[in-house]
Amino acid sequence: MTSTVETAFAAHSRPARLNEPGAAITRQELQLAARNHGLPLEMLRAELTPPGLHYLLIHYDIPFVDPAAWSLEIGGALGRPVTLDLAELTRLPRRSVRVTLECAGNGRARLDPRPESQPWLVEAVGTAEWTGTALAPLLRAAGLSDAAQEVVFTGADHGVERGVEQTYQRGLPLAEALGEDVLIAYEMNGAPLAPQHGYPARLVVPGWYGMAHVKWLTRIDVVTEPFTGYQNRVGYRVRSTREEEPGVPVTRIEPRALLVPPGFPDFLSRHRFVHPGPVTLEGRAWSGWGPVTGVDVSVDAGTTWREAELGPETSGRWAWRRFTAAWDARPGEHEIWTRARDATGRLQPLRPPWNASGFVNNEVQRVPVTVLAA
Amino acid sequence: MTSTVETAFAAHSRPARLNEPGAAITRQELQLAARNHGLPLEMLRAELTPPGLHYLLIHYDIPFVDPAAWSLEIGGALGRPVTLDLAELTRLPRRSVRVTLECAGNGRARLDPRPESQPWLVEAVGTAEWTGTALAPLLRAAGLSDAAQEVVFTGADHGVERGVEQTYQRGLPLAEALGEDVLIAYEMNGAPLAPQHGYPARLVVPGWYGMAHVKWLTRIDVVTEPFTGYQNRVGYRVRSTREEEPGVPVTRIEPRALLVPPGFPDFLSRHRFVHPGPVTLEGRAWSGWGPVTGVDVSVDAGTTWREAELGPETSGRWAWRRFTAAWDARPGEHEIWTRARDATGRLQPLRPPWNASGFVNNEVQRVPVTVLAA
Repeated sequence: MTSTVETAFAAHSRPARLNEPGAAITRQELQLAARNHGLPLEMLRAELTPPGLHYLLIHYDIPFVDPAAWSLEIGGALGRPVTLDLAELTRLPRRSVRVTLECAGNGRARLDPRPESQPWLVEAVGTAEWTGTALAPLLRAAGLSDAAQEVVFTGADHGVERGVEQTYQRGLPLAEALGEDVLIAYEMNGAPLAPQHGYPARLVVPGWYGMAHVKWLTRIDVVTEPFTGYQNRVGYRVRSTREEEPGVPVTRIEPRALLVPPGFPDFLSRHRFVHPGPVTLEGRAWSGWGPVTGVDVSVDAGTTWREAELGPETSGRWAWRRFTAAWDARPGEHEIWTRARDATGRLQPLRPPWNASGFVNNEVQRVPVTVLAA
Repeated sequence: MTSTVETAFAAHSRPARLNEPGAAITRQELQLAARNHGLPLEMLRAELTPPGLHYLLIHYDIPFVDPAAWSLEIGGALGRPVTLDLAELTRLPRRSVRVTLECAGNGRARLDPRPESQPWLVEAVGTAEWTGTALAPLLRAAGLSDAAQEVVFTGADHGVERGVEQTYQRGLPLAEALGEDVLIAYEMNGAPLAPQHGYPARLVVPGWYGMAHVKWLTRIDVVTEPFTGYQNRVGYRVRSTREEEPGVPVTRIEPRALLVPPGFPDFLSRHRFVHPGPVTLEGRAWSGWGPVTGVDVSVDAGTTWREAELGPETSGRWAWRRFTAAWDARPGEHEIWTRARDATGRLQPLRPPWNASGFVNNEVQRVPVTVLAA
């Protein structure tokens, strides 16, 4: 990279930046919000997110991939590197897994000061049934080296980030990559992947935040040292201060519960209005660390809590779980909160520690509701 | 409606409001931007917008409609009112039309001061092939009264807007409703409508902005006086001042051209970088008033313009048209502008008149591009 090019990037690709405390959303944040989108919360009623409503976070442009010209090269520290075209990939043993996928930046716009990036509130989530072939047997059949430490996944998407021109790449520790449900997926809910979800093939790493699920896969490389590419070393790290510090990598999804907002909304404020009487509150809860073991609900802004009823684990270990709670809605102003816990003892916090890149903010959802007069 | 209820709405459903000049995006605007979404501009390369990438503007919540319980009542000033269930609707003669649909608020966030609502920049557009049955034969067969003036379409979506509780309704002048390509559509690109696009049936009014294409249809009523519901009388009107004034109704889509942004982007700024040499600029242009007759392109921020090459009208009268222009990209900073014209003489303006609700802002797109050193 010449210094002229670096200068060209520097003028339009700024270092990480915090907004002023209390600042409104910038034009740059709006540009991202108009492209990427979250799950409309009322669609939490669906166990599998309908096509087009699953959250999307796309770093650069959606690449156009010609399926006839596409191939996936699997190489690096392997005795027998292999290249697969799409027909070969789809002839391998099929495996389907239902997975709740969440953006690592979900909740960022609720932090103050707010790191400047995609300004998610709470909606960057979705659940799909992914079908593909398991990665582990493929790597083992290709002669995985004993020295292997990580697996590096390369997508077809290309751009600049904080001054660094790059093709999207992420390294995953070998033990994670060998998980039985880690897939090279080519179908989503029974249909070929949509362009925005990684057509023709993407990685699925159940339990991990979205940045690990590399879309538009072109290469898989087994490496014998920790990968030091931008998205692992710079991009997806939790840093507790504003200063430059190495931070810790973003990995698995922290527990979160989200409510289907009850009643009906105001168009602009999204404030909810509910008719008085018995209301069944419902929502979904998930965690990438362990099964959800409970969801607490408060209808008085956290003053008192009670346990919601968990629905059956209908979609397996990696998907969200439905919960319900009866509420006798009395006229007046209310604020409904929910919080999830999981089998590892993680409890969704009222206010998690702030971090400089705005990752993993799983603070409880707060839903203000006006119950109308009888 | 009791005064208690009106008070409850007033506290959380504010009158129309302008942001301060130059103001950043509010939390309320962000909430809308995180739900609704535009077309990622690189997908302008596709003649038909792939599922999930078509723009969405949903006033309230996406309703859950049980197709087995659903029916469409067609009544009002008709000799023989009719009720159709989904099986009956889909047995009627089929008609397919390719339509470019755009939100009336597209461009709102480029106005200053900016009316507070969904903050679109330029991306609220998409093109689909809609299949359903033509409305006109259905109305005629039902004994359309000579006194009919308008047709009122009612959706299943319910909410509050500027203090008014409502189910989404729009009136359409009779002559428009009888257009041969006006459909009650139940398929989009060959598949049943997705929930967010109006499942199980919606109106399609080719050439009109999105607010006319009522989703989740439940009723169609022929009326003998102009309809005075909220979305016609208050909501979708162009008002030239900040004062209360009746304004003029929003109707057909003004011409617009949008470019596939060339090269590759910076993640945050979306600024584009292009390697030097020959580049084929491409985009799509449309107008709801008449066929697109030309697109002008400027690579020097409007100092000089030249005519782009229009592609064939492959998708019929109501869909956008592809254009291309050759560009010899030389290192340095550039700004690419495009503007469309149509057969009615409408030319996309550099700066259209400001209006108080932020509708029909079709000012030319401006795409800053850095051409890298050779």
